[in-house]
Amino acid sequence: MTTPPVPDLTPEERQHLHQFYKVLHTHPELSMQEYRTAERIEAELESMGVESFRCAGTGVVAVVRNGEGPVVALRADTDGLPMLERTGVDYASQDRGTASDGTEVPVMHGCGHDTHIACLTTALRMLLRRRTDWSGTLVAVFQPGEEVGQGARAMVADGLWERVPRPDVVLGQHVSNQPSGTVTMAIGPAMAGTDSLRVTVHGKQAHGSRPHLGIDPIVLGAAMISRLQTIVSREVDAHEPAVVTVGVFRGGLKENIIPERAEFTVNIRTLTEPVRDQVLAAVKRIVRGEAEVAGAPVPEIEHYSQLPPTINNVDAAKQTYQAIEQALGAELVSVERPRMGSEDFGLLGKEAGVPSVLWFFGGAEAGAVDPPGNHSPFFAPPLEPTLSTGARTMAAAALHWLSTPSIAHG
Amino acid sequence: MTTPPVPDLTPEERQHLHQFYKVLHTHPELSMQEYRTAERIEAELESMGVESFRCAGTGVVAVVRNGEGPVVALRADTDGLPMLERTGVDYASQDRGTASDGTEVPVMHGCGHDTHIACLTTALRMLLRRRTDWSGTLVAVFQPGEEVGQGARAMVADGLWERVPRPDVVLGQHVSNQPSGTVTMAIGPAMAGTDSLRVTVHGKQAHGSRPHLGIDPIVLGAAMISRLQTIVSREVDAHEPAVVTVGVFRGGLKENIIPERAEFTVNIRTLTEPVRDQVLAAVKRIVRGEAEVAGAPVPEIEHYSQLPPTINNVDAAKQTYQAIEQALGAELVSVERPRMGSEDFGLLGKEAGVPSVLWFFGGAEAGAVDPPGNHSPFFAPPLEPTLSTGARTMAAAALHWLSTPSIAHG
Amino acid sequence: MTTPPVPDLTPEERQHLHQFYKVLHTHPELSMQEYRTAERIEAELESMGVESFRCAGTGVVAVVRNGEGPVVALRADTDGLPMLERTGVDYASQDRGTASDGTEVPVMHGCGHDTHIACLTTALRMLLRRRTDWSGTLVAVFQPGEEVGQGARAMVADGLWERVPRPDVVLGQHVSNQPSGTVTMAIGPAMAGTDSLRVTVHGKQAHGSRPHLGIDPIVLGAAMISRLQTIVSREVDAHEPAVVTVGVFRGGLKENIIPERAEFTVNIRTLTEPVRDQVLAAVKRIVRGEAEVAGAPVPEIEHYSQLPPTINNVDAAKQTYQAIEQALGAELVSVERPRMGSEDFGLLGKEAGVPSVLWFFGGAEAGAVDPPGNHSPFFAPPLEPTLSTGARTMAAAALHWLSTPSIAHG
Amino acid sequence: MTTPPVPDLTPEERQHLHQFYKVLHTHPELSMQEYRTAERIEAELESMGVESFRCAGTGVVAVVRNGEGPVVALRADTDGLPMLERTGVDYASQDRGTASDGTEVPVMHGCGHDTHIACLTTALRMLLRRRTDWSGTLVAVFQPGEEVGQGARAMVADGLWERVPRPDVVLGQHVSNQPSGTVTMAIGPAMAGTDSLRVTVHGKQAHGSRPHLGIDPIVLGAAMISRLQTIVSREVDAHEPAVVTVGVFRGGLKENIIPERAEFTVNIRTLTEPVRDQVLAAVKRIVRGEAEVAGAPVPEIEHYSQLPPTINNVDAAKQTYQAIEQALGAELVSVERPRMGSEDFGLLGKEAGVPSVLWFFGGAEAGAVDPPGNHSPFFAPPLEPTLSTGARTMAAAALHWLSTPSIAHG
Repeated sequence: MTTPPVPDLTPEERQHLHQFYKVLHTHPELSMQEYRTAERIEAELESMGVESFRCAGTGVVAVVRNGEGPVVALRADTDGLPMLERTGVDYASQDRGTASDGTEVPVMHGCGHDTHIACLTTALRMLLRRRTDWSGTLVAVFQPGEEVGQGARAMVADGLWERVPRPDVVLGQHVSNQPSGTVTMAIGPAMAGTDSLRVTVHGKQAHGSRPHLGIDPIVLGAAMISRLQTIVSREVDAHEPAVVTVGVFRGGLKENIIPERAEFTVNIRTLTEPVRDQVLAAVKRIVRGEAEVAGAPVPEIEHYSQLPPTINNVDAAKQTYQAIEQALGAELVSVERPRMGSEDFGLLGKEAGVPSVLWFFGGAEAGAVDPPGNHSPFFAPPLEPTLSTGARTMAAAALHWLSTPSIAHG
Repeated sequence: MTTPPVPDLTPEERQHLHQFYKVLHTHPELSMQEYRTAERIEAELESMGVESFRCAGTGVVAVVRNGEGPVVALRADTDGLPMLERTGVDYASQDRGTASDGTEVPVMHGCGHDTHIACLTTALRMLLRRRTDWSGTLVAVFQPGEEVGQGARAMVADGLWERVPRPDVVLGQHVSNQPSGTVTMAIGPAMAGTDSLRVTVHGKQAHGSRPHLGIDPIVLGAAMISRLQTIVSREVDAHEPAVVTVGVFRGGLKENIIPERAEFTVNIRTLTEPVRDQVLAAVKRIVRGEAEVAGAPVPEIEHYSQLPPTINNVDAAKQTYQAIEQALGAELVSVERPRMGSEDFGLLGKEAGVPSVLWFFGGAEAGAVDPPGNHSPFFAPPLEPTLSTGARTMAAAALHWLSTPSIAHG
Repeated sequence: MTTPPVPDLTPEERQHLHQFYKVLHTHPELSMQEYRTAERIEAELESMGVESFRCAGTGVVAVVRNGEGPVVALRADTDGLPMLERTGVDYASQDRGTASDGTEVPVMHGCGHDTHIACLTTALRMLLRRRTDWSGTLVAVFQPGEEVGQGARAMVADGLWERVPRPDVVLGQHVSNQPSGTVTMAIGPAMAGTDSLRVTVHGKQAHGSRPHLGIDPIVLGAAMISRLQTIVSREVDAHEPAVVTVGVFRGGLKENIIPERAEFTVNIRTLTEPVRDQVLAAVKRIVRGEAEVAGAPVPEIEHYSQLPPTINNVDAAKQTYQAIEQALGAELVSVERPRMGSEDFGLLGKEAGVPSVLWFFGGAEAGAVDPPGNHSPFFAPPLEPTLSTGARTMAAAALHWLSTPSIAHG
Repeated sequence: MTTPPVPDLTPEERQHLHQFYKVLHTHPELSMQEYRTAERIEAELESMGVESFRCAGTGVVAVVRNGEGPVVALRADTDGLPMLERTGVDYASQDRGTASDGTEVPVMHGCGHDTHIACLTTALRMLLRRRTDWSGTLVAVFQPGEEVGQGARAMVADGLWERVPRPDVVLGQHVSNQPSGTVTMAIGPAMAGTDSLRVTVHGKQAHGSRPHLGIDPIVLGAAMISRLQTIVSREVDAHEPAVVTVGVFRGGLKENIIPERAEFTVNIRTLTEPVRDQVLAAVKRIVRGEAEVAGAPVPEIEHYSQLPPTINNVDAAKQTYQAIEQALGAELVSVERPRMGSEDFGLLGKEAGVPSVLWFFGGAEAGAVDPPGNHSPFFAPPLEPTLSTGARTMAAAALHWLSTPSIAHG
């Protein structure tokens, strides 16, 4: 059985895709708070005649049964980011949300998850229109909370894989700042594992004019942050990609009080377990050692989130790659090295015990020099060919697996 | 004309002093928001039959005229601090306030201004009781917003010195963690000048896994803070006391986003203008230079507050010192070197064009080893002899000046 | 014409190899001062009946003509390192040499160039013994001064390629701390390019007790070194191997004088030109910026040495790899990624306009955990199978190329 | 008995003083190597008919007995510094010496000890000329090795105080960059105590391209130096003068080897024992803690030299001050605060169990703005009034004590 030719979008589908995307873009929501987004997805599915159920609060799952055949899971993540949009597009977000610390913050679909949602619903629409070309079962997974690494775990914990037919493969895609219209895929490791630590630095409070009576946790925290740089610069093999980022540093309430504590986060990206272990150990050694240097109490280190590397099953990735190449043309598809970003996508396949494949599709104006990337306040993928490419690629990949009689899990 | 003997407190006065102090301590208010505190002071004055008026919103001023004679201004500051009290006393504060950035914070009389208020009202009560011993005019100034360096300026701007008889001298006192019952005074420079700068470090936002696409303002801010240490350690003459404190550092919202900016405060203490100029120039040079090191945009440096050194007029200080020594006994009074803390008290005398004198009275348990100091969450002066000493000292000093026919301003 | 089978060493050859190696190891010489080493090589060649000439002072070149055929150049580098040997072997070096700054220093063959010399003379001996198996010309190049990146340039400048028949290929090998008996080779980029900078930090001299009258170049240099860490940790793409090492830092003569200057070296390793340019620019930006931070004069930055990446010609490398695999067996030979070390070997082929191939052979005890590497004072390759493998590998590679009628240069 | 009037120099004495000074200046010698200097002093003494003996190798001691009376010891230190003179005077030094590490270095009388010698021999000459004005015993102590803090100890250990009549007081003076012609003296603490530590940082050697296989002692040493800044900036009370200087840092031999160790010195200046203990403990805590941060072996910390604060006996200082004031005129003499420089002068009086007094005389051109100080390569005191003032001051102080019948030791 060969894969049927990949469908293109009808003008109506394309127009609807754009409209739906713009609505999603204008109204992003913070991680695990995707209430309105979930409702919009439900309404969209309902308009196609597809039933869905909630999973993990703001997750939405749809199962489309179309006779005997493989079960293919397609995943889109749905959350936005706490950042102020500066794209200047007329459908830019002005929405705000409540961060976990209770403060109100601007929200933006700065990572492009809105494209993922719209492309997945559109791919479903295209596949439903050509229902006679395939048989089997589609499972569409609209996953919340990817940015905080909680959504995939939460859906699995809420019984995702017990509540749907067990898939043979899990497919996902992510927009990035490569040229719009292109698709790239890593064969094997695809994205970094990530670990997040929260360090609470304890000092000793004193009046700002009498530092000798206190222990300054801000000077100490600054020393820790400076010394953390040596992990990548001196300790990790130069051939092993590793990133150690302090994304947040906060301490103090008043300029003339040396505070009792300061707090910072450490986010780590690595591609292998040994390097991950090495970096984690080094972070702890440096943080604890610097506190001794300062004569300060032992700092607290909370390892509050972790995601394993995202590994594309080599066989499944090769097959999917070929299917996409066939759909888009070889000149638009290429193999890439692993990316240092992280995803909780890999957990879905891992927990289901089946192969998974993630690829990237372009979201930057063709020819743009140094285009803004994900998490930039200026990240604004052009509608086309970005959205049609995302929808067609997902449809093509799904169609391939729906047409594949037997999949060797591994 | 000799100074009459210093009155002691009656048992009732002492009991009332304690009660009033505890109420003030339980209900601190943030700077320039001392609404209920002002009402409590007004009520207290009214209960003595003393009229008062508001000045600068939450400032309270009372004028007590008692015939011909000198005009003596007595000042107490009235605001609390944004910090969580941990003293464990049964009259501890559980109150909260709204910080200038809109967040709700705990509030504590962590600097002991509650003792200043209660001692000043009690001194007035003692002097009123012995009204026949002196003639002249007392001006009691209850000043808000000392902690933010705004209150004295605000009262002067609101016409303080036009609305009361021009004083011959301004007297003030501050509790500190020296042994309760003692008084210390510097002859000449008494407290440091202070400058506060807000530094906004500009980076370039990027995903935390792709630092090479951004400029990390947190690593940059940490480098600035580390380098600021060299001002005191290498640039300022070791004989010249100087303090450079970064009391607040804030940057980043999410562990996996390298933020666009970070912000920190720099608080500077110096005792002379040349050293002040040297340190200010060095802070600016270091902050701007480090941004160049990082290839980052020029940081913004906002010099948002400054207070000159507090200088005790030498002649007036010597006279006041002798009066206090006479009242408390020589073994409880001593001369001290300047303190690195700052005050806006000095502005009051400077703006009135008259000498001013500030002294410190003890607020630490006798014999305590390393007692908590001002701005410590554990700062809890014992009621006695702290409060009686503060009240008697202020009364004695006032009485001296009311008995001094002619004061040479200088 | 097929490559003849690779010869093994006779017992006498092996014994002589060991003896010659030990003598070389016991008497290392510093770069460009390899006078006795050159004499030893000349004597060894003479004992085989091979004439040689000097090139670039301490370089030795031998040409062995054996009828018509290809010309194959084989290169060994000959210099030792200024370091104290701690291997404990009974043929360890106790020799000393005079460093370029005039100080006397211990010298050690810490990089294993002694193995390169002994394996090359032995390979010649093996090939001469089997002279009937091949025809063509061998050019043996014993190159001085590899450690300082000067020897290859010096030999070319001294007319190397004008004084010998033009080679069709240049072959070289290097011992490393992989298991003795194994060989590894990169296809394409094989070793990093390297740049060395000397930074002279200017301060202002003062007595150590009066830092405020000077500018401290040691504190400044330390800040520069700390900040250089951020190039690799924050500025370079995590996928691009890059190393920035400060190998030498010197400043000051006396503990109580703040010196007028300090000096440090920066050694950079990169695999591509864009990353090299990025790192060089960042080093300069940081060094100059930090001097501004300190209010110090502009530092001097001398870019005193540079070597391009060592690139193995892909076709030539594949051929050589196969020849070695055939000689040693597939299980002992493997492909590797580029190394971050640098070599001036690549200049020889580049200047001759012909392909060149460099590989590595093992010098660590089989099964050793974390064996000492090149430039470690404990680096002591076991005599066997290290030396026989090096000799046989070089002979096998040479024999392949001598049997290859036509080489496409590229 | 009143002090006789202070003698002035004759034209011949002045001319001789200048000549002798220039010879000394042109030929400085390193600490504890003052062989030619000692011979010059001996010859000078002999030319006055004064016998002398050697003490501690290069120390010279002369005893001048002139009847009954007090015994007054006068001390001059004699060593130069390892630095290149840049004064441009026509009697500048071009001499070189051998440093303790065996390297040859330029030598300069950069601390002005040449003025001390010449002024002391001239004072002796003046006092000998007026021998009838006083009776008693003069002990002239020409002490080597002040710059390394060894000379005073060495002379005491070599029996100084057993080999001369026990003095009633020890007097010394030092030139500095205050205006030539002036004298300053501290009453009480006069100069800082000093402690010198040598820190050996242990890393793990590796090739510069493979930092992950080593531990970088230069990056570690740089971190230590940066963190040492926080002792003065954050840990020591701003009112307590303290200086922590790293005068020497040395590590590495070659730009492409990460060395096994690095070494630096820490020089500490403090005025009290508690602050000294605090700073010493902080240095050790920081150095050891940073090694833990780096996962490096425990560093060695050698506390190789220490000198206590130089304390002028209060009574003896006041008397001496008055004598000098009387000789030079009140406008040229003033009281100063303690200096952060250190001396081993204090050990002489301490070991003899008698009071000692040290003062400073000016060596800067009158009106010079920011004149070069001691240890500057540009330090060049004008011959006059520098030298005459030094000679007359020493003579006047000696004459006072020779005329003082009874001295209370304390």
